[in-house]
Amino acid sequence: MPIRKLSWAKRIAEMPRYRLTLEFDGGGFVGWQFQPNGLSVQEVVETAIERLCGQPQPRIMSAGRTDAGVHALGMVAHADIGRDMTDARLMGALNFHLRPHPVVVRDVARVTDDFDARRSCLQRHYIYRIVNRVPPPALDLGRVWHVATPLDLPAMQTAAALLQGHHDFESFRSAHCQSKVSEKTLERLTVTQAAGDEVHIHASARSFLHNQVRILTGTLVDVGKGRWTPDDVVRALAARDRQAAGPTAPAGGLYFLSADYPQDA
Amino acid sequence: MPIRKLSWAKRIAEMPRYRLTLEFDGGGFVGWQFQPNGLSVQEVVETAIERLCGQPQPRIMSAGRTDAGVHALGMVAHADIGRDMTDARLMGALNFHLRPHPVVVRDVARVTDDFDARRSCLQRHYIYRIVNRVPPPALDLGRVWHVATPLDLPAMQTAAALLQGHHDFESFRSAHCQSKVSEKTLERLTVTQAAGDEVHIHASARSFLHNQVRILTGTLVDVGKGRWTPDDVVRALAARDRQAAGPTAPAGGLYFLSADYPQDA
Repeated sequence: MPIRKLSWAKRIAEMPRYRLTLEFDGGGFVGWQFQPNGLSVQEVVETAIERLCGQPQPRIMSAGRTDAGVHALGMVAHADIGRDMTDARLMGALNFHLRPHPVVVRDVARVTDDFDARRSCLQRHYIYRIVNRVPPPALDLGRVWHVATPLDLPAMQTAAALLQGHHDFESFRSAHCQSKVSEKTLERLTVTQAAGDEVHIHASARSFLHNQVRILTGTLVDVGKGRWTPDDVVRALAARDRQAAGPTAPAGGLYFLSADYPQDA
Repeated sequence: MPIRKLSWAKRIAEMPRYRLTLEFDGGGFVGWQFQPNGLSVQEVVETAIERLCGQPQPRIMSAGRTDAGVHALGMVAHADIGRDMTDARLMGALNFHLRPHPVVVRDVARVTDDFDARRSCLQRHYIYRIVNRVPPPALDLGRVWHVATPLDLPAMQTAAALLQGHHDFESFRSAHCQSKVSEKTLERLTVTQAAGDEVHIHASARSFLHNQVRILTGTLVDVGKGRWTPDDVVRALAARDRQAAGPTAPAGGLYFLSADYPQDA
């Protein structure tokens, strides 16, 4: 066994590295990251690579470790895969082995060994979908947050502009957040009206705190309902206390949209 | 029992009539129409009315009788409902009783007794969603038709223009179609590129033959793949034979969008 391990370690070091772009429905998963108590997106993708290559315990790293129920349209991950085939064939083979899970490889690109989906990431983009109408959604159940109270969009936009930029987001992270620092730069936080009674919140940053987008969304929705003024949001930010901010919006409305890398320029 | 029946018949005749606009995920249903071998959308809505009013065997009529797996964003139906409440309250109560089914009343409006969702309908609008990319959809599984071959949109648009208008659509209806006539006027048949690698086909007509939109879609996709020329479509139309047209597109990509009535003007 140690000999076989060594042999694999050597083979993995020589394997070409790939950048994978993934779309998944997070509804049935315990989240991105491997957990012993349920099926994760990571486990599903690693199992597909293992089936394809016979490579024991392949490891993938991703730009974001999304929570249970959070979806992705363009999650980026990297993996070292020891199969000599074109990018297009590799994508097809991975998608074959990913079935029947609602996880799909949307794009495959050969990258240099210094590409790291987590560490090299320059910016992460999320979108949060709210359906703002009295009747609940029938087709998008578990894919949107249903808010029946009419939302005051201009007030939400004013509050979002106040939250954008470099701040200490201590009030906007979960108690489980493991980040040593709570200062982050929100490059974008915008609220827009979309088709079909939808309100979209776009959030972009180099990195986010745990639950940050969902707490920002919950707080902005409280502003939209008229419970809070935009000034209350500034006070919540200054309080440096999770209790001072709004509720955590449900996971099902959140989508990891895309991630930017130096190589994209 | 006959006395009770008579009493209900009289009460139904006096009941106010409502126009209901429904959204539903057709994936788990045998279709719109009641069938003894499985759950239909009609049964689910009628059961909700029965629960709300205690009214035995309430009957609803709809603009369209969609097949199993076909969805709706704005199906129109009418029902006589014997509960004295505002439209908003009635919508809330019906949605409460529709749970947990993926069927939602999006709008309720009191109408005169001569409103008939089926007979008064001036025009029915459908949209067919195709995802045209190599990787299969993860989030929209069962909600779109996945076509991996790149589609030639201009060719599809040319063919659609040739199919638009008044024609004998004998080649474009299923063997189970019960309509006595096969001549119909397609007021609109357009093919457009949409966001997220989607191609949308819009179809509008006063009425459609059974499977007509799905066979039109299957034929247009054959044109998009380069298997057929737009002229082949004209020949298929002239053949007056189901075998001459393309395949029936899957149910899951089709949505009943809306219905127009004289009262809307």
